[in-house]
Amino acid sequence: MTRPALLSLDDALAQLLASVSPLGRTESISTFDADGRVLAEDVISELQVPAFDNSAMDGYAVRVSDLHSSNGLPVLPVSARVAAGQAPQALQAMSIARIFTGAPIPLGADAVVMQEDCTVVNECEGGVRIDVMPKIDQWIRRAGEDVQKGAVVLPRGTRLDPAALGLAASVGCANLQVVPRPRVALFSTGDELVMPGSVTPADMKVGSIYNSNRFFLRALLIRMGCEVTDFGIVPDNRAATLEALSSAASQHDLILTSGGVSVGEEDHIKPAVQQLGELNLWQIAMKPGKPFAFGKIKLGSDPHSFAHFVGLPGNPVSSFITFLLLVRPLLLQLQGTTSVALQPVLLRVDFDWPKADKRREFLRVRRNNDGGLDLFSNQSSGVLTSAVWGDGLVDNPAGQTIKRGDRVSYLSFAEFLK
Amino acid sequence: MTRPALLSLDDALAQLLASVSPLGRTESISTFDADGRVLAEDVISELQVPAFDNSAMDGYAVRVSDLHSSNGLPVLPVSARVAAGQAPQALQAMSIARIFTGAPIPLGADAVVMQEDCTVVNECEGGVRIDVMPKIDQWIRRAGEDVQKGAVVLPRGTRLDPAALGLAASVGCANLQVVPRPRVALFSTGDELVMPGSVTPADMKVGSIYNSNRFFLRALLIRMGCEVTDFGIVPDNRAATLEALSSAASQHDLILTSGGVSVGEEDHIKPAVQQLGELNLWQIAMKPGKPFAFGKIKLGSDPHSFAHFVGLPGNPVSSFITFLLLVRPLLLQLQGTTSVALQPVLLRVDFDWPKADKRREFLRVRRNNDGGLDLFSNQSSGVLTSAVWGDGLVDNPAGQTIKRGDRVSYLSFAEFLK
Repeated sequence: MTRPALLSLDDALAQLLASVSPLGRTESISTFDADGRVLAEDVISELQVPAFDNSAMDGYAVRVSDLHSSNGLPVLPVSARVAAGQAPQALQAMSIARIFTGAPIPLGADAVVMQEDCTVVNECEGGVRIDVMPKIDQWIRRAGEDVQKGAVVLPRGTRLDPAALGLAASVGCANLQVVPRPRVALFSTGDELVMPGSVTPADMKVGSIYNSNRFFLRALLIRMGCEVTDFGIVPDNRAATLEALSSAASQHDLILTSGGVSVGEEDHIKPAVQQLGELNLWQIAMKPGKPFAFGKIKLGSDPHSFAHFVGLPGNPVSSFITFLLLVRPLLLQLQGTTSVALQPVLLRVDFDWPKADKRREFLRVRRNNDGGLDLFSNQSSGVLTSAVWGDGLVDNPAGQTIKRGDRVSYLSFAEFLK
Repeated sequence: MTRPALLSLDDALAQLLASVSPLGRTESISTFDADGRVLAEDVISELQVPAFDNSAMDGYAVRVSDLHSSNGLPVLPVSARVAAGQAPQALQAMSIARIFTGAPIPLGADAVVMQEDCTVVNECEGGVRIDVMPKIDQWIRRAGEDVQKGAVVLPRGTRLDPAALGLAASVGCANLQVVPRPRVALFSTGDELVMPGSVTPADMKVGSIYNSNRFFLRALLIRMGCEVTDFGIVPDNRAATLEALSSAASQHDLILTSGGVSVGEEDHIKPAVQQLGELNLWQIAMKPGKPFAFGKIKLGSDPHSFAHFVGLPGNPVSSFITFLLLVRPLLLQLQGTTSVALQPVLLRVDFDWPKADKRREFLRVRRNNDGGLDLFSNQSSGVLTSAVWGDGLVDNPAGQTIKRGDRVSYLSFAEFLK
């Protein structure tokens, strides 16, 4: 047999992203429920933040020039008390106002002295000594210094996180226009797969293994904001497979399978997808994760009406890593996220990797207490222990060895999973 | 007024964690639903992984000594075909077996040759030429090489992520014993707070601001695996506050408020918590985030029966950062997570920070394309733009300036939020 040409990971990703357009639909949801969703419209502030000049501290609002007119440390009467939520009168001449964090600055005051820098000297008449002279503007948050009216505070395409929800709420947005959750149909393939719980470990037949890919793929899809329908094992004949795939395609944006995409494997998915649409069987120059299938299942004669199809390799680690590196960007782009690439950081390795591979490698590593990276001893793609023990991947270029002390590109699993 | 003594962040965290014991309850849930949950028991493998010697490639299983007995490149008949899930017969002498990834190695075979290294030379009789001579054990995954029977694959206290769910499933676990979700009651305090949606930006009164803390705190709590009850604004009199807090305490593990914890602020929460239990009003030497309240609300006379109380500062960024640095570890410990500390990475800064602060600072920064860190121009704690623009924090020690090119401790938001 001839060795099929290998595609680089970058080329595979570029081809895949070129075929994926953002979902056209939008929906309005409560800002409370929008964590992890992607904005379908800019969030524009209809107010300035802060809306008014306010105090950054608990203390006293003062007019700085009043303080300079006294000899020694000034003592001034407290003529007003302004709490957050109150609209104060203008500050009386030669007086100060008790003020709390977030409260509006009275007209005429031009600084706040924090209470730790003041001493109450005359409890009955409310006299307060200013122990540390303020500069003009001290501890005042000026109106609009954080957000100008009309500013885009969150652009369309932003994937929302807790801080973004807070920012949207701070400019008054109770609801947000977001992209709907991508609908993903999950299929497994492989006669050897047994569901945990259906057969005990002691009763497992030789040749059988537990289906683990379904578990992490479902969890990864949910983390990516998807609505998942798990169809279980692909039916074991052509007609039923055709029927299952076309029925799933009409209700989903993506059909995701694992297993059955290696060159020599015989299963019903590949010919069925080819019959229903298009299928590219890629051999990607990456390790783990070589075989990868990408295509579409057409719905009727409208060329714009189809579901995407992705077939991941069956080995758990290969399946996990190709999900992170290829399916994650696909799902972000489907949701209209403006930035899908991750930025690696350069970290020192505390191990040797003396044998270069012809393929680009993704080694499972963990950061140690000295700021370096340790390698998991078993880089086998057959079991997920390396991905559980590790906290990220070293992205090692093809043909490259690594020496202790080298700086390498590290991708944190947390960045993929956030 | 005297300046209250500042507590270091490390001391505050140590005191807080010393007061928090893991929840004693456990529950059994489906492995499918366990993402983000914490294991209450070790997951022990009752099988070895792989369960049997199997092929890592699609190709041909061979007996290496058979190949050496021929002159030139050996051509051997294919005597069997082993797909994944099948239990094969022993390999016949002077023959090879077609084999697929994951399929059991026939007895007698001691290597697999990948199909790209073979040529079918005699279609009718099934003769295959081995083009590249294999080494013994090549492309064979040996039984137990990934997981030994009886091994702890996931220790108690592990916070589960998608890969961990896959690993648990791969050893046959359909259900897992986990710690129940911490039940958190969320209160807001502040007369100035207005809910988004209840008043339009144009109609906001001077002194009013939108409540944004509720939105990000709720989202952060959910990401930390909590069940959240949002009680809204604290009632504005003492009796109702006492009633609300004791009622919430009986149904929740933690009562979380934001606002009302500064030295000078008057609200009903502080005296109510003091009356119902204990309250420490800390001034933490950190910026942003100085004021922080930690205590408990007792339930009856049993000293072990209480709800934790945490009062965060009202400024959004202070509230956000104290949540990440103090409440997150508290919630992890409450769930019995074995490791609650984050590991910073050392990254280069591409900015100057010429003015040292007396407090330890957490600067909002973003990684740039050159592997360095950029600073958000507005480090105000009044608005969340810095936490939205940024992708993490620089942990800058008290009294320290930063020069362009320095390496500093960087904490990624993704690590906090995963």
